[in-house]
Amino acid sequence: MKISYPASRKIYIKGGIHDVRVGMRQISLLDTVRIENGAETREKNVPVVVYDTSGPYSDNGIDIDISRGLPRLRESWIDARGDTEKLPSFSSAYCRKRLSDTSLDAIRFPPVNLPRRAANGKNITQMYCAQQGIITPEMEYVAIRENQQNETLGIATPITPEFVRSEVAAGRAVIPANINHPEAEPMIIGTNFLVKINTNIGNSALSSGIDEEVEKAVWSCKWGGDTLMDLSTGDNIHETREWIIRNTPVPVGTVPVYQALEKVNGNIPELTWEIYRDTLVEQCEQGVDYFTIHAGLLRSHLSLVKGRTTGIVSRGGSIIANWMTQRKEENFFYSHFEEICEILKQYDVAVSLGDGLRPGSVSDANDAAQFAELSVLGELTLIAWKHQVQVLIEGPGHVPMHRIKANMDEQVKHCHGAPFYTLGPLTTDIAPGYDHITSAIGAAQIAWYGTAMICYVTPKEHLGLPDREDVRAGVIAYKIAAHAADLAKGHPGAQVRDNALSKARFDFRWKDQFNLSLDPEKALEYYKAGHTGDESDHCTMCGPHFCAMKLTKEICP
Amino acid sequence: MKISYPASRKIYIKGGIHDVRVGMRQISLLDTVRIENGAETREKNVPVVVYDTSGPYSDNGIDIDISRGLPRLRESWIDARGDTEKLPSFSSAYCRKRLSDTSLDAIRFPPVNLPRRAANGKNITQMYCAQQGIITPEMEYVAIRENQQNETLGIATPITPEFVRSEVAAGRAVIPANINHPEAEPMIIGTNFLVKINTNIGNSALSSGIDEEVEKAVWSCKWGGDTLMDLSTGDNIHETREWIIRNTPVPVGTVPVYQALEKVNGNIPELTWEIYRDTLVEQCEQGVDYFTIHAGLLRSHLSLVKGRTTGIVSRGGSIIANWMTQRKEENFFYSHFEEICEILKQYDVAVSLGDGLRPGSVSDANDAAQFAELSVLGELTLIAWKHQVQVLIEGPGHVPMHRIKANMDEQVKHCHGAPFYTLGPLTTDIAPGYDHITSAIGAAQIAWYGTAMICYVTPKEHLGLPDREDVRAGVIAYKIAAHAADLAKGHPGAQVRDNALSKARFDFRWKDQFNLSLDPEKALEYYKAGHTGDESDHCTMCGPHFCAMKLTKEICP
Repeated sequence: MKISYPASRKIYIKGGIHDVRVGMRQISLLDTVRIENGAETREKNVPVVVYDTSGPYSDNGIDIDISRGLPRLRESWIDARGDTEKLPSFSSAYCRKRLSDTSLDAIRFPPVNLPRRAANGKNITQMYCAQQGIITPEMEYVAIRENQQNETLGIATPITPEFVRSEVAAGRAVIPANINHPEAEPMIIGTNFLVKINTNIGNSALSSGIDEEVEKAVWSCKWGGDTLMDLSTGDNIHETREWIIRNTPVPVGTVPVYQALEKVNGNIPELTWEIYRDTLVEQCEQGVDYFTIHAGLLRSHLSLVKGRTTGIVSRGGSIIANWMTQRKEENFFYSHFEEICEILKQYDVAVSLGDGLRPGSVSDANDAAQFAELSVLGELTLIAWKHQVQVLIEGPGHVPMHRIKANMDEQVKHCHGAPFYTLGPLTTDIAPGYDHITSAIGAAQIAWYGTAMICYVTPKEHLGLPDREDVRAGVIAYKIAAHAADLAKGHPGAQVRDNALSKARFDFRWKDQFNLSLDPEKALEYYKAGHTGDESDHCTMCGPHFCAMKLTKEICP
Repeated sequence: MKISYPASRKIYIKGGIHDVRVGMRQISLLDTVRIENGAETREKNVPVVVYDTSGPYSDNGIDIDISRGLPRLRESWIDARGDTEKLPSFSSAYCRKRLSDTSLDAIRFPPVNLPRRAANGKNITQMYCAQQGIITPEMEYVAIRENQQNETLGIATPITPEFVRSEVAAGRAVIPANINHPEAEPMIIGTNFLVKINTNIGNSALSSGIDEEVEKAVWSCKWGGDTLMDLSTGDNIHETREWIIRNTPVPVGTVPVYQALEKVNGNIPELTWEIYRDTLVEQCEQGVDYFTIHAGLLRSHLSLVKGRTTGIVSRGGSIIANWMTQRKEENFFYSHFEEICEILKQYDVAVSLGDGLRPGSVSDANDAAQFAELSVLGELTLIAWKHQVQVLIEGPGHVPMHRIKANMDEQVKHCHGAPFYTLGPLTTDIAPGYDHITSAIGAAQIAWYGTAMICYVTPKEHLGLPDREDVRAGVIAYKIAAHAADLAKGHPGAQVRDNALSKARFDFRWKDQFNLSLDPEKALEYYKAGHTGDESDHCTMCGPHFCAMKLTKEICP
């Protein structure tokens, strides 16, 4: 299972502080050829370096065997810090039970990596280190990674390791980096960095197998997914997740309550803190990098849901809402939040505070229920930060364009600068089958306003589970939204790729145009469908006689 | 060649002033079924009426025969005004030559409709009538059409015939309505009305035949195209256009210089005002409703193009730029602009002032060349209005998000309130193959800011000519952008369809959800791909056990 991109090679940039090598993709370009007065002149075009989420899959020097997992890139860094210990066995009772069940051997990821945990009394999180003034290898790694194009082009590099440290220390940025997922390449989520995109995979009770899920994870990384949420709700979640984590070079997130609920056969009132707690430990020790936890949805919010057009549309939110209603108790994610933080900090798992009351229709956007929960997420942020647990804040949902800005403003007002992570938002409800587009419109806008990560939506949203082509369509739509926002935010270096592609377009360097694009295969496929011969001096749209760019060259050679 | 939509019927709403019947599409809905304490209650759902661009094609009571053309809806209205005359023959020399060429009989549209022109000394444009205080049938028609949902729902109808008249009189809105295209249903383009979308079709020298072009025109109307530009540059443009106009229920636009250039075999310096003039008359008498004319690109602007990344990317712009360079003369569209207006006003053809210097890359956005031309478009607007010729102003192009607003602001500043009509804009250059998405992001935004019509971009943009599926993808992406903008602008009634669809979604009325969507066929196709049985009480994404909306109902029945 390898990933290749045309005219591209993997390059590594070394760190100056730590022994880190940051993988990037370098796209080589053809020369610009000009003919003036019968004489041909050639101009070299500098290769373009682009951010690369494909990890070892695109390095020809690394053998990939998914039954062994990816190289454990961060293991030596974590070892060197000396603040963690390898445990003799897994702490989760459920995990131990699964490991001892020989009937699962056939579907189990073969190697067993014993878990690592903070040594007694140690705080090991990136946020803690940052607050101590320590620049970790992860921080230097992301600094280099964010500066990709600048480094090679000699543009000033405003994103220094020290800047990364200060942003993480302040909680304005998150580096999801569970010590039990050393395969993941460090990346950063924060408003002062490149906008990131999350993709979701996961089997539901209705479909999918293990191989298919691993393949989807790699596929998502190929097209540019920055993080990956495994939302499985079917059988063998534990084993499927192990395969995914061991083979995924980007941070992995989950919604642990999905699995906890499976453990009580979907019987919501039987859900207990103890079962949930064991699930958190199980997943922390497997290497999940961030958890979505719907801790801000309180009993008092439920009355605000009545009268909504689409009620509660968050799965996690609806589970805990039902639990509260049936048990007549407060949300146990909320009442046990300190204990949750105590667990997460031992593995440096980030918490992504879920928006269980996100609007599911434009009619419910920005309502009292949504904003009541958001302000509780702000309170919880301070609790998590007291433990130096890194925090993301989740956001909507369905929001018409003129109400998007208020979401960002409310988040800034209540959440103390923690990064915002939104699902779209979808700007209209009327286009099922095209919600990657309805939501890319909103995602581009909210990312421009400061949202740090946008969760992709595929064309199958509301209709079914995405297949490979849906994942690809969703990822590309979101890479577009994220990049449009990077341009709008004036991120240094973001326009390098646009300029190179547009120059290639003007030069009729068709191959360079394809190779520089977000989806070279699709661009080539579409070009071939309309290609009828030599198009070295005109474009396929205008035809040979009326090509605007050709005519421009005649007057401005 | 008919168009049908599921669960829909054609309804007509009658005018109160004139004898007009405005076609709309009414979507009928299933009942909402609730089960409380074992008892079933049913609630009726009001049918939803949506704007309908499909014309007679979706009326089962009308026989369609494309070799006869569509019913001539506006003929009696035009007759009744008594300010036009039927000519004994066509005024264009070229048109007469084509008609007398028997070798073309095989491809000719069979009926010959002699042209109509303003009677001697009469001004017949909608703008002139509006300024005289006259509410034409066209104005009443569009007022009813814009109020579609309000009418049936009893919402206040702010768009009165008098409001339409006042907007047309002020030049803030355009009703493209050539007296020689009586088949077209009146529609209005203006910032205070629903955002419209234009689609482009047209064979280039490389592909396409007549049948295919007519079919594409109907196909575009099926999905929601509000106007249609025929950008053909190949053979038999005249005959192809006749087939298209006679069979298209929406206004048709062209770029006349494309055909004029064909008449001199693509030899730019041979282009003359006389040839162009005859082409305008030819097309006016065929029934083209609006012309893109690149009259604002002056010789003095050419020096501003040097140093651009992508030079001139407008075909029309590059043609006239070359003409000026080779002939060392001023743009003849500019120097003959008064004469152009004298011709257009005789047929009520609107002028769409082309942006020959629109940026073709984010690097060229908002540059001196672009804005220099825009200010000339403002001057030309006043000249056209002196003749009561209706005016649209064309806009970019490629513009990153943070620079879009300035485009609208400059247009407002220079163009006296004439409606803005933009191509996208594309918010990044790096996604060939997905430019319907890069541009829908920008189009939604600029339409929210006040742009009245957005010209679609298909996935094949920059790569080749669109096929049927590309046209569909482009139209739907633009319907999304336009509707997102209508919601953001608070257009009364715009949210009715969103609310109805979201209610259907929450009720698990799957068929209603599909039927209310912009592309019911695609939604159904995607649903079926993941459908595994009875999903009357949960959604396909969550599966039966964890469906958020199902769980909501348990707590808020």
